[in-house]
Amino acid sequence: MSQLSPSTALPLDGQALLLQIRLLGEIGAEPEQDGRTRIALTDADKAGRDQLLRWMEALDLEIRIDRIGNIFGTLRADGDQQAPLMIGSHIDSVANAGALDGCYGVLAGLAVVRAFREAGVRPTRPITVAAFTNEEGVRYQPDMMGSLVHAGGLNVDAALETLGTDGTRLGDELVRIGYAGDLEPGALVPHEYLELHIEQGPVLEVEGVQIGVVENLQGISWQQVTVKGSANHAGTTPMHLRHDAGSVAAAAITHLREIAVDGTLATVGCLRLEPNLINVIPRKAVFTVDLRDPDEARLQAAEKRLADALAHLAETEGVEIHSERLVRFEPVIFDSDLASAIAASANRLGFSHRRMTSGAGHDAQMIARIAPAAMIFVPSQGGVSHNPREHTSDELLLTGAEVLLDVVCQRLARS
Amino acid sequence: MSQLSPSTALPLDGQALLLQIRLLGEIGAEPEQDGRTRIALTDADKAGRDQLLRWMEALDLEIRIDRIGNIFGTLRADGDQQAPLMIGSHIDSVANAGALDGCYGVLAGLAVVRAFREAGVRPTRPITVAAFTNEEGVRYQPDMMGSLVHAGGLNVDAALETLGTDGTRLGDELVRIGYAGDLEPGALVPHEYLELHIEQGPVLEVEGVQIGVVENLQGISWQQVTVKGSANHAGTTPMHLRHDAGSVAAAAITHLREIAVDGTLATVGCLRLEPNLINVIPRKAVFTVDLRDPDEARLQAAEKRLADALAHLAETEGVEIHSERLVRFEPVIFDSDLASAIAASANRLGFSHRRMTSGAGHDAQMIARIAPAAMIFVPSQGGVSHNPREHTSDELLLTGAEVLLDVVCQRLARS
Repeated sequence: MSQLSPSTALPLDGQALLLQIRLLGEIGAEPEQDGRTRIALTDADKAGRDQLLRWMEALDLEIRIDRIGNIFGTLRADGDQQAPLMIGSHIDSVANAGALDGCYGVLAGLAVVRAFREAGVRPTRPITVAAFTNEEGVRYQPDMMGSLVHAGGLNVDAALETLGTDGTRLGDELVRIGYAGDLEPGALVPHEYLELHIEQGPVLEVEGVQIGVVENLQGISWQQVTVKGSANHAGTTPMHLRHDAGSVAAAAITHLREIAVDGTLATVGCLRLEPNLINVIPRKAVFTVDLRDPDEARLQAAEKRLADALAHLAETEGVEIHSERLVRFEPVIFDSDLASAIAASANRLGFSHRRMTSGAGHDAQMIARIAPAAMIFVPSQGGVSHNPREHTSDELLLTGAEVLLDVVCQRLARS
Repeated sequence: MSQLSPSTALPLDGQALLLQIRLLGEIGAEPEQDGRTRIALTDADKAGRDQLLRWMEALDLEIRIDRIGNIFGTLRADGDQQAPLMIGSHIDSVANAGALDGCYGVLAGLAVVRAFREAGVRPTRPITVAAFTNEEGVRYQPDMMGSLVHAGGLNVDAALETLGTDGTRLGDELVRIGYAGDLEPGALVPHEYLELHIEQGPVLEVEGVQIGVVENLQGISWQQVTVKGSANHAGTTPMHLRHDAGSVAAAAITHLREIAVDGTLATVGCLRLEPNLINVIPRKAVFTVDLRDPDEARLQAAEKRLADALAHLAETEGVEIHSERLVRFEPVIFDSDLASAIAASANRLGFSHRRMTSGAGHDAQMIARIAPAAMIFVPSQGGVSHNPREHTSDELLLTGAEVLLDVVCQRLARS
């Protein structure tokens, strides 16, 4: 077995990668809906994990599972104890999901390792492929849980006590499916961390760009706003005597469009009225606000502008408005050196690329707390994700994997 | 028995009226909710009708029931066949209702008749107290059905075929509760029609006025608007690439506030989003629009402005918008002579009054198609109706009944 030199370009077995994506996507499949469901720590998730382990074993990786169920498969370097270069993502899914979200990144990690194996090249530093537990957070909150525990942001014992939406205890389910490992979370601190993912948004496709060099990740602010007005008869209450909770909610949503400028995103995804009758002025409106910005100061400014607008509406409309914070993450800035390496690899391979911000949350943002991290995006057709229609062409999937492999080769050549 | 002369002021037995309102309100009572439910043609409605008939019999009225179940109790005049002065409303209710909506008008009619009986005065023209079937339209659509059939606006055979929200056929239920009469609807055309009702709105209370002289009734336009946009990830879709159905709905609702001027009322009571998830841009928004105006030209102008605004939004936001008409009634102008008589009676009795528009629909609007009609309103506490908290003080209830009795005496003195 030879050592890897900077100029070495290892061949990628693209067909093996595409086959594994297809096969993993068949686990938990719902043929009538064209999607698959492998929610964390269900039987379907266990089946996906079992398949991943068989593929890791076939590559003769050293497999370790930690107490929160994170799976690590390591290709050892020459007899050293160096920190590994880690390639990670997740294989749990939302309900009725596509086949790519998360799985693509984990299986591309296996493709990188396979390239080394098949070329008979031993890396200068261990390469670890990681599949983190419960990234989606469908049954157990918070999402990105496995990577958060790994990075020390959540105590593993507390995480094991988490109760699910179905009343189950996470630790019990982990034992039940046989993935309560003994490795202490965080024992495996990577030297550097890379995550390849579909964009889950429309930017790359709209601009016709092949590769996204993800240099940061937006901060997220989720609030639930409750407006309390007065229910009254729609036909008998003059406009100036109304305290219409629905109308106030509409004014707030309209105002959010003015707040969402200069890179700030604002979305009202949920809204319900009470009593929700055609001829009754709404007594109550409850809506959610999702604000995102890669810049913390701008995110705070958007929150402030919303709060000011709500206070103004409460006063002028004679309603009570209450906001409850649901989720708040500060923006994450990825490692600029690693981002530059991704851009350099895309350049070298002749792929178009652009610097960009991740709008969604990813395991990489947690690992960025303990190691230099960055992400590679490939386009999502129509920007669709969390849906059976999630799609990226085989060609673009391989483009992303080739960039990942090249970045790994370049980084190992440096170490 | 004497004939009534113009100057005669008959005494009203206020306590009998208040007692009957209380007793009828106990039928169908739901003590745990403080309200009562007597939805048309249910067992509770039958019990209310049975009680009303006993009270009519006690006053020795000539009772007739027509094929749609409308109940008429007539105090005969001296051996003539003149058209009656009719006092009417309804005794069916919404779910968990107050005790006054409708019942007040019917029982005040009985109080008028009782005043004649107790004074030993025979009217110069028959007085008919009417209780119309299914004014509320909860189980069977349309509402105001009995008076609509009476006025010839809906064929009785078609009305009897109406299927309820519970799958029952109206005609079967009418037979089941024993109120399928043999009088042909519309046989009893009134000389004039009066309806006393609680305002169900806040205007009289806010202005501290005792009596509303209802000179017209608003036109009503109900639409359901469906906006179809595109669902996408809230964190990854730039603002300029969105087709946010919820945001478009909010803009339309905000625009409605500008349309609702000069007496036009606009209400969005129902709104729902799909998929209604916090981090997904709404794919679909469905909302109702309730527009009302006493002037048909203004109502049409409001409908036009809404349609224009929706067309503009569809184009600028890249969404599909579809509007479906649910209900459309033109405004009704009540008889000005009768309205003036109500104002004159309020004046004579020393009660404050104002001319006003009815915002809600009433049986009087149907009867106005075949006879001079007008309404008398008394204040509703807090404007609340269709709710157990519906309330008007005993004093104001009697004020309204005294005006009704005086108007009847004055009209009969003229005939």
